[in-house]
Amino acid sequence: MKTLPGKTVERLSQYRRMLTATLESNRSYIFSHELAAMLHITAVQVRRDLMLIGYGSVMRKGYDIRELIKAIGVIIDPPEGLNVAIIGLGNLGRAITGYFMGKRTNMNVVAAFDVDQQKVDKVIAGVRCWHIDQFRKLKPELNIAIAVLAIPTEQAVMVTEMLVSNGIRGIMNFTTKPLNVPDTVYLEEYDMITSIEKVAYFVKQNQ
Amino acid sequence: MKTLPGKTVERLSQYRRMLTATLESNRSYIFSHELAAMLHITAVQVRRDLMLIGYGSVMRKGYDIRELIKAIGVIIDPPEGLNVAIIGLGNLGRAITGYFMGKRTNMNVVAAFDVDQQKVDKVIAGVRCWHIDQFRKLKPELNIAIAVLAIPTEQAVMVTEMLVSNGIRGIMNFTTKPLNVPDTVYLEEYDMITSIEKVAYFVKQNQ
Repeated sequence: MKTLPGKTVERLSQYRRMLTATLESNRSYIFSHELAAMLHITAVQVRRDLMLIGYGSVMRKGYDIRELIKAIGVIIDPPEGLNVAIIGLGNLGRAITGYFMGKRTNMNVVAAFDVDQQKVDKVIAGVRCWHIDQFRKLKPELNIAIAVLAIPTEQAVMVTEMLVSNGIRGIMNFTTKPLNVPDTVYLEEYDMITSIEKVAYFVKQNQ
Repeated sequence: MKTLPGKTVERLSQYRRMLTATLESNRSYIFSHELAAMLHITAVQVRRDLMLIGYGSVMRKGYDIRELIKAIGVIIDPPEGLNVAIIGLGNLGRAITGYFMGKRTNMNVVAAFDVDQQKVDKVIAGVRCWHIDQFRKLKPELNIAIAVLAIPTEQAVMVTEMLVSNGIRGIMNFTTKPLNVPDTVYLEEYDMITSIEKVAYFVKQNQ
């Protein structure tokens, strides 16, 4: 299958979350317009995305929720699971670890790394914390593919260089520092303050 | 001035962060292609955004960084500042509060709310924590305009209804539950797991 656009992958991930929540409320079928309403997008968009992964709805009945959850998983989940390391176990690192635990079966948080001796060699938020100097040694041992950066901004560039030189394949950057990585590494970045500044702007416009 | 598209506001916020970092390294001018490279976008995009806010670059010299930081502030910052409340002081709530402290002068985190008696009436991460039941009373007293949701997903709908009924004007939702709010409230949502699933998908594609 051809590589999907990033935005489509994001929506598939969101559909799955909605479908799982709907299943828990004892429903077996769902219409595209219902999924669309939950995510504030159009039903046409939902149907187009699901057609892309080879999925049509059954007229008058909608989509079979269980089947659709499976179909999305086949497309977006790594078949053997991918191992994730959390870099930085401050408040944000612990929050992310907490989100993961028990939620996803195909991505595993296998280690956390920090420089704080109070955290190193302890199990925090359900994950073992190692000193960052151990990353080089543990990356192949634990088969770490993805790093989630939750460290202070000043350390972002240096730590990223270390991760890249040790063969990391994907980085999710939650620091406010935009990073440069080689083409062989997939990088995604998110900055919370930008989102909150956007809310402030539109609140001001509505005054 | 006409309301700008959301994506433009996001980029202006990001430009300002880059400009501030560049100023700290003792430079006074910057070219559009430099800003573009930092944010992985095109120089044409940067110039178009800055033209939108009435800003051209000086040939051969680039943009005056100090002036540009001011110009962006005039456009995206609320003139008298907006007061923000953090709802939920778990790991994520504390991480967000920490990000804010000392960084922005025009948005002020004036209160946090939680239900945990261990946190209520204490100052945590530099902000006073109140019981969520106090929100109704404190919202007008503290002039709270924006709420940042960092609570467990199960509570998202109920708490949002309470915030809306008390006249909140903007909500930044960090829970994984998509919310519905009236048109008078500006809502922005972000889900960390979606971003990390996207990284996993592209890492898998590159295998």
